[in-house]
Amino acid sequence: MLRFHHIVRVSLFASKASTFPLTSLSLSTSIPKRTTFALRSQMTSFSSSSSSSSSKLLFRQLFEKESSTYTYLLADASHPDKPALLIDPVDRTVDRDLSLIQELGLKLVYAMNTHVHADHVTGTGLIKSKVPGVKSIISKASGATADLFVEPGDKVHFGDLFLEVRATPGHTLGCVTYVTGDASDQPQPRMAFTGDALLIRGCGRTDFQGGSSEQLYKSVYSQIFTLPKDTFIYPAHDYKGFSVSTVGEEMQYNPRLTKDEETFKNIMANLNLSYPKMIDVAVPANLVCGVQSKV
Amino acid sequence: MLRFHHIVRVSLFASKASTFPLTSLSLSTSIPKRTTFALRSQMTSFSSSSSSSSSKLLFRQLFEKESSTYTYLLADASHPDKPALLIDPVDRTVDRDLSLIQELGLKLVYAMNTHVHADHVTGTGLIKSKVPGVKSIISKASGATADLFVEPGDKVHFGDLFLEVRATPGHTLGCVTYVTGDASDQPQPRMAFTGDALLIRGCGRTDFQGGSSEQLYKSVYSQIFTLPKDTFIYPAHDYKGFSVSTVGEEMQYNPRLTKDEETFKNIMANLNLSYPKMIDVAVPANLVCGVQSKV
Repeated sequence: MLRFHHIVRVSLFASKASTFPLTSLSLSTSIPKRTTFALRSQMTSFSSSSSSSSSKLLFRQLFEKESSTYTYLLADASHPDKPALLIDPVDRTVDRDLSLIQELGLKLVYAMNTHVHADHVTGTGLIKSKVPGVKSIISKASGATADLFVEPGDKVHFGDLFLEVRATPGHTLGCVTYVTGDASDQPQPRMAFTGDALLIRGCGRTDFQGGSSEQLYKSVYSQIFTLPKDTFIYPAHDYKGFSVSTVGEEMQYNPRLTKDEETFKNIMANLNLSYPKMIDVAVPANLVCGVQSKV
Repeated sequence: MLRFHHIVRVSLFASKASTFPLTSLSLSTSIPKRTTFALRSQMTSFSSSSSSSSSKLLFRQLFEKESSTYTYLLADASHPDKPALLIDPVDRTVDRDLSLIQELGLKLVYAMNTHVHADHVTGTGLIKSKVPGVKSIISKASGATADLFVEPGDKVHFGDLFLEVRATPGHTLGCVTYVTGDASDQPQPRMAFTGDALLIRGCGRTDFQGGSSEQLYKSVYSQIFTLPKDTFIYPAHDYKGFSVSTVGEEMQYNPRLTKDEETFKNIMANLNLSYPKMIDVAVPANLVCGVQSKV
């Protein structure tokens, strides 16, 4: 699969669990021979106008009812290979997701997580077992095992589209937000997959897994609220039936994050939430792609 | 509200429950004085290119978990009044929907139903009681009470955008599908709000409320599958976590409607579904906008 052009343009570092090191295009002199990379010539086969580029993105929002989790399917539908990725797949809806991917004629290349989830078991390991060649992705800071690790500033390419990686810790230490590219040939408005860092009119709890309300506040303000106001917010969960918001909306109406930092910290310190019922099962599993074996 | 330009361009007929008759622009000579209508000059204030027109549509898909119902919010965000409509609102999520509409600065003008639902109580009556001036809309063939009745071929205008009405009976006798306009200044791809006529990889049952599998088959093939293949399908429900499909996808993968008519009828005759638990409450209520009083 990776002989095509689907690569993660990241800083050079070793993957803990994989023999597939990632390489930055900007460090091309040190690219190992086994690493493929995007060819600039492949970027010219499509119009760079935003109107035509937007239509390239095949996008589906999928819902897992028990944990109220959103899984996102993105693909470059204009590319001959239709390379696709899944963000935050859930173990119990893997068959649904893979069936849809097959019907749409997509080639799944990445199964990614925004963080180590505590409320459901990730589907990435199961997907890897069912679709050979798919690579799991998670942040290096998560401490979890995966095929590929991403760091802030990295880009995850699928066809001629890409997601950039922003560090948004606070719900967990390793949370990242994936944002569609800031370029004329990428979808407009931009789309931010915020995981549990920013929810619609809410945010993830900060009392487990290295969580920190102070850090979450800084993450949202520095990494998400600095995006264009029309950027779509696609969170990992919603419990009230909302499907999408925008940066502008959350800056204006988020009942927690419109407050000053001290008030926010007080709110988060006094949520009195019960112990997450899935955490003792989900977190150990999600540290290893949801399956209790080496990925 | 209707002093602006939000009108239903429909054949002239009397509303059973309202003193607000609807009038077709093509019948302008017979427009009653109290009926306002769209001014052509207002159509020229926006670009007619599909790329810019798409950005005018503010669109939100909202979910009611208990009945797995999708409510759709559409607004013309480029119009100074930001006129908006809701398709298939649910009574228990009315406050959520109205709060969102208020936050987004929209002016709700219509609360519409695709049909008389049997599985939840519509929110249209409650919305009318909370937002004076909103008009409820349902098909004339539904036999229900509402402020405005639509018939096949009618257009429901909100700002410079519009929905066209297609008769898609079969789940109920009065089911309609609302489809975004077929014009260069309307969103592309088109969007079809199919109610229970066509669900994602499924369809509504046909054993109650004047349902007919033969009629449903003909409705889907003549009114939905004749739309461009990239038309988005937004159904009234989904039980598996899908949010959207396309005409092309359903033509290829719908497990019931890809069959020939006889096979489809056999499938529908042998579903052995239980009696809808909400039907005895929901249908009488939904015949009168969800509230047991004159609308």
